[in-house]
Amino acid sequence: MSESSDRVKTGIKGLDELIEGGLPRGYGFLLLGGPGTGKTTFGVQYLYKGITDHAENGMYVTFDEPPYSIIANSERYGWNVGDAEKQGKLAFVDVSPIKREAKPSTFVPPSLGQSFLGAEKFKISDVMAAIREVKNKVNAKRCVIDSISALTLQYKDDFEIRQQTLRMIKDLTEMDLTTIMLAENPEDRQDMTRFGPESFLAQGVIVLHMYRVEESNVKALEVRKMRGAKHTDRLCPYRITAEGIEVYPEETVFRSV
Amino acid sequence: MSESSDRVKTGIKGLDELIEGGLPRGYGFLLLGGPGTGKTTFGVQYLYKGITDHAENGMYVTFDEPPYSIIANSERYGWNVGDAEKQGKLAFVDVSPIKREAKPSTFVPPSLGQSFLGAEKFKISDVMAAIREVKNKVNAKRCVIDSISALTLQYKDDFEIRQQTLRMIKDLTEMDLTTIMLAENPEDRQDMTRFGPESFLAQGVIVLHMYRVEESNVKALEVRKMRGAKHTDRLCPYRITAEGIEVYPEETVFRSV
Amino acid sequence: MSESSDRVKTGIKGLDELIEGGLPRGYGFLLLGGPGTGKTTFGVQYLYKGITDHAENGMYVTFDEPPYSIIANSERYGWNVGDAEKQGKLAFVDVSPIKREAKPSTFVPPSLGQSFLGAEKFKISDVMAAIREVKNKVNAKRCVIDSISALTLQYKDDFEIRQQTLRMIKDLTEMDLTTIMLAENPEDRQDMTRFGPESFLAQGVIVLHMYRVEESNVKALEVRKMRGAKHTDRLCPYRITAEGIEVYPEETVFRSV
Amino acid sequence: MSESSDRVKTGIKGLDELIEGGLPRGYGFLLLGGPGTGKTTFGVQYLYKGITDHAENGMYVTFDEPPYSIIANSERYGWNVGDAEKQGKLAFVDVSPIKREAKPSTFVPPSLGQSFLGAEKFKISDVMAAIREVKNKVNAKRCVIDSISALTLQYKDDFEIRQQTLRMIKDLTEMDLTTIMLAENPEDRQDMTRFGPESFLAQGVIVLHMYRVEESNVKALEVRKMRGAKHTDRLCPYRITAEGIEVYPEETVFRSV
Amino acid sequence: MSESSDRVKTGIKGLDELIEGGLPRGYGFLLLGGPGTGKTTFGVQYLYKGITDHAENGMYVTFDEPPYSIIANSERYGWNVGDAEKQGKLAFVDVSPIKREAKPSTFVPPSLGQSFLGAEKFKISDVMAAIREVKNKVNAKRCVIDSISALTLQYKDDFEIRQQTLRMIKDLTEMDLTTIMLAENPEDRQDMTRFGPESFLAQGVIVLHMYRVEESNVKALEVRKMRGAKHTDRLCPYRITAEGIEVYPEETVFRSV
Amino acid sequence: MSESSDRVKTGIKGLDELIEGGLPRGYGFLLLGGPGTGKTTFGVQYLYKGITDHAENGMYVTFDEPPYSIIANSERYGWNVGDAEKQGKLAFVDVSPIKREAKPSTFVPPSLGQSFLGAEKFKISDVMAAIREVKNKVNAKRCVIDSISALTLQYKDDFEIRQQTLRMIKDLTEMDLTTIMLAENPEDRQDMTRFGPESFLAQGVIVLHMYRVEESNVKALEVRKMRGAKHTDRLCPYRITAEGIEVYPEETVFRSV
Repeated sequence: MSESSDRVKTGIKGLDELIEGGLPRGYGFLLLGGPGTGKTTFGVQYLYKGITDHAENGMYVTFDEPPYSIIANSERYGWNVGDAEKQGKLAFVDVSPIKREAKPSTFVPPSLGQSFLGAEKFKISDVMAAIREVKNKVNAKRCVIDSISALTLQYKDDFEIRQQTLRMIKDLTEMDLTTIMLAENPEDRQDMTRFGPESFLAQGVIVLHMYRVEESNVKALEVRKMRGAKHTDRLCPYRITAEGIEVYPEETVFRSV
Repeated sequence: MSESSDRVKTGIKGLDELIEGGLPRGYGFLLLGGPGTGKTTFGVQYLYKGITDHAENGMYVTFDEPPYSIIANSERYGWNVGDAEKQGKLAFVDVSPIKREAKPSTFVPPSLGQSFLGAEKFKISDVMAAIREVKNKVNAKRCVIDSISALTLQYKDDFEIRQQTLRMIKDLTEMDLTTIMLAENPEDRQDMTRFGPESFLAQGVIVLHMYRVEESNVKALEVRKMRGAKHTDRLCPYRITAEGIEVYPEETVFRSV
Repeated sequence: MSESSDRVKTGIKGLDELIEGGLPRGYGFLLLGGPGTGKTTFGVQYLYKGITDHAENGMYVTFDEPPYSIIANSERYGWNVGDAEKQGKLAFVDVSPIKREAKPSTFVPPSLGQSFLGAEKFKISDVMAAIREVKNKVNAKRCVIDSISALTLQYKDDFEIRQQTLRMIKDLTEMDLTTIMLAENPEDRQDMTRFGPESFLAQGVIVLHMYRVEESNVKALEVRKMRGAKHTDRLCPYRITAEGIEVYPEETVFRSV
Repeated sequence: MSESSDRVKTGIKGLDELIEGGLPRGYGFLLLGGPGTGKTTFGVQYLYKGITDHAENGMYVTFDEPPYSIIANSERYGWNVGDAEKQGKLAFVDVSPIKREAKPSTFVPPSLGQSFLGAEKFKISDVMAAIREVKNKVNAKRCVIDSISALTLQYKDDFEIRQQTLRMIKDLTEMDLTTIMLAENPEDRQDMTRFGPESFLAQGVIVLHMYRVEESNVKALEVRKMRGAKHTDRLCPYRITAEGIEVYPEETVFRSV
Repeated sequence: MSESSDRVKTGIKGLDELIEGGLPRGYGFLLLGGPGTGKTTFGVQYLYKGITDHAENGMYVTFDEPPYSIIANSERYGWNVGDAEKQGKLAFVDVSPIKREAKPSTFVPPSLGQSFLGAEKFKISDVMAAIREVKNKVNAKRCVIDSISALTLQYKDDFEIRQQTLRMIKDLTEMDLTTIMLAENPEDRQDMTRFGPESFLAQGVIVLHMYRVEESNVKALEVRKMRGAKHTDRLCPYRITAEGIEVYPEETVFRSV
Repeated sequence: MSESSDRVKTGIKGLDELIEGGLPRGYGFLLLGGPGTGKTTFGVQYLYKGITDHAENGMYVTFDEPPYSIIANSERYGWNVGDAEKQGKLAFVDVSPIKREAKPSTFVPPSLGQSFLGAEKFKISDVMAAIREVKNKVNAKRCVIDSISALTLQYKDDFEIRQQTLRMIKDLTEMDLTTIMLAENPEDRQDMTRFGPESFLAQGVIVLHMYRVEESNVKALEVRKMRGAKHTDRLCPYRITAEGIEVYPEETVFRSV
């Protein structure tokens, strides 16, 4: 097995070189960031570039934004996610709270039943069954969970949340998917990040920071943890450009440009 | 469909240019701010300018201030909200705790029944039914919820609050309304904003900051998140003028004027 | 109706000019401050000046300090509150925990029954009935609640406290009283104020700050929110003088005098 | 009634001049401070000087340190508390958890029964009965409660603690005692004091601060609130000398000596 | 009774002169510090020097580290604790969770039964009985409790913890032991110490601080409270040397050496 | 018994000289650090170097990352953990939530039964039985628990967590293993470390710090506590190199290199 086949290229310009060529294949990774840091864009870019540049199909599990909206928003980056979906290279598992009949959603696995966020009949086991079904259907190698934080809305106590998160990570790893799990960082403070249990269950943790410096917001990506990859210690500036997210490993965050 | 019809003009001077021409049509947006930052003014301006400048009718759902008071307060900005209401272009859904008979309130949908904030018979499903009814009556395209924070007074535990918020956002999105949800920011500290679950369920988050700088309060608007719109990173100063809220994208917050 | 009749003069020297001439008539306002900031003095001054300068009678609802003590303490400012009471221009609703027989208290409405703070038979509905009765008796236009924070001592959980506060504000507004509700600010920190639900249910919020600067305490008044009034953004110094509270809109807080 | 008879001289050198000649007679006052700030010394000095300099007898209610220990510790200031007790001018109500038989305690009112801190049969009503009994026995005008914080050890939830504190303050005020209630300030931080409900139920609040400045601890007294007395705003340095606590109104805290 | 017999020499070089010659005899004192500050060393030194220098026997009650380990670790300071134990001058009450049969523990009082930390049959009354028994056996004048914090592991709620602590302090004081109770300081921050209820139940509080200054940790001892002893206000540097803990009253903490 | 046999060499270059030659034999030590600080690498290096350089076998108990992943990740440091396992010198106890059949895991003790993290039949007593069994099988002298924090996911309340941690530390110490327990440090703040109960139950505490300095992350090791070893007070820089973790006792953290 070649070196490259052990690595999953992220499709995020400038990121792979920070982590020895890509994400270690077959594991779950956490992408942590506050509102507006570009987590969903990161997730779609990861899947779309996987299809177009690396011939690896993907699946997007959404507990929040409905698929039609994700597809529409992706167009601004020139990503034809809808086509990829029609070609069977990308699939959505739609667990979003928006009623499915209301707007054209692309695919709801029958196994999902009445499980969608906010429903009383929501069952994480239904979601996992749907993920398995969809994975096989499109032969997905990559997966995005958007988001672990939204999932917690469905549960009453911390213990149940931790247990469900644990089981989901467990199941995803066993399916040999290379998964990026999005998570909210609720505190908007420069000097602190809180890491929940998902951060030590994940094989890697990437943090998207957004600092207010005078009246600007400065964005910086930090590879906080990456098991099995020698990774940089540095905070790297990133921007959300017309081509998606770009990381600038050569620039500095606080005195750049 | 033209570019402009995908966008809902906010009616807030200086804001649309920050978000590629307006709010993405058909979604829910969060407006977060502390007391005195002008959230209600923002909401009324959004609806009133929608009617006068963009021929889009609107509805105002209030869990807090009664309609007659909102109407009276709007006069100082030269907005004849009462007339707009009489012309069937704007409607209120009055879920405020103030007894409805006490002062002339303009419209209470029959479906609302005994549901008003503070009542024991309060049911969010009644509120949603009233919203549907009123929406159809005035053919509303725009909606303001004032406020999500007041709504939480009615519930005992966090789980129930999260579930109700989730369902309300879900229902509003399915009605094809472009909704601005007001929310309190309980912390009055310069270096921190807390984002609750509503912030990641919303399509966009706009924060109204109020900083104390020596003995003055400085106001600044931040577009924290806006799915489907390339938006600015900068904090922009805003003021509450005799014509309503105005944002100054060209000025700086901390060393301006 | 003239402009002035829409406004209730506060009787606090220097304050009315900050809020377009006075408090908007018929609403509830929150006065937030820590121990020693002069909240009770503010409340008494508002009622007493209402009687002497604006011919508006008032009522003082106390959950804390007994009436005889409030009357005695007011003498230092030259306010003959006892006389005003005897003339039927000012009335107390005594819900204080101090036993009523112990010292001459001026008036306890029969409807109050066994409701006083700390009693097992305390009922907020009794208090509201007493307020209605006293309002009619003295034809009160102004009301002071001292304090919302003391009221919370009587309840076990946050939900009940929020509901009771909500109902009290609701009832007071429906009685057409212009009410100032005193509330404790438990944190004595320069950079933070916490605003509870009463702050967004109130029509306006005035904060009395007390900052420690070296070994002095500096006092400053902030009109944080005032619906229906264009109000200043600035922190204004105030002092507790021999004539009561005086606000100095022309002075600066941090480099003044 | 003369001016002086309305005031209770504190016996703390330098303090009375900060509060218009003494504590307003007949009320309860809170003395708030962290460990080592001299709260017990303050309390004993208040009672002892009352006896020796102002011919007013006193009573010390202790929930913490046993009387024999308080008596022994007072000797270092030259206060013969034991003699004052024998002469019937000062009495202890011993509710301390230390077993009463173990060492010579001076007086346990029969009404106290099995009520002492830590006992299962502890009843605050027994304590109040004992206070009444002892008050009458020595004709006490002054009272010290040491401490409200220790009392809270006996209760399970915040509500019960608040209710018991409320009732105790209520009862003490009705007995016409001028009472100083000691309370712990659990946070040892320069920029913050938390004020519990007892602070707004009390007629006055005096805070004993202890700041660490480099390797020294600087002590400063603040009269935070004093109903019915024009009091200083300034932080005043104090020291615990061989004659007890002395406040220095003319000195500055941070650049003094 | 001579002055010196009222004082218990601590055996900590440099400490007694800070507290008028030693700890007031017969009371309980709190020693508060974070991990690595030397609390156990302080406790052993107090007992061992009591035996060798002041002919006072002692007892060490351990809820954490087993006796054999404490004995072994003491050897590095040249203290032959094992010999002292064999000579009946020092005794351990072993309530540590480590199984007693596993390694040679020196003495387990029969009265202790199945009471050891972590056991379901743990009873604090058994521990107190064992302490009484051992005290009489070796005629102990000094006692160390290591630690109050470990004891809290055994209880479910804060109320129970406070009650048990209260009873233990009560019982120890009645046995005429001069006791040092070790307690963890969970926060490692320069600007804050939290004091629990044990701090105001104790006759004195000594805090061991550990500050990070650049890459070094600076240690400083503070006598925060000492009833019945005139004590210094200053923070004094201390070190853990080959002869045990030494305090340097003449040196300064932040600019010394 | 020679000096060296009392000490267990850590295998971490530069660390042993900070703690008098190694870890005191037979105790439990806590290794505390946030995500990405290299805790797992530290644990594997401790066991692997024990085998190759000191002829001491070891066991790795994992509640998180499955053994095959730990083995694969170790290869980057040139450590052939898989060979060591085949030679019976190192063994894994696999309590990770990943399904054991999914990928070749090396050894699951039969006594473990259905106990693995996330399973409903999880029993800590099964885990301890498996540890005993594996210890005897490979004659382990060293043990790593990865991690105490993951273990807490399985329990509902803090009391249960504390009790289970207490029992595990107790059992491990009685097996004469020299154990390093990994634990998450959830706060990523420069000025604070929180120490849980495990920190005072452990014989030593080593903290791996990760500070953000401008856009770099600086790593520093602190020996916070080490019973029975004179250890340094200084923060020492460390790096994760191609040969594993290296500590640099001679360098400074903040102005080095």
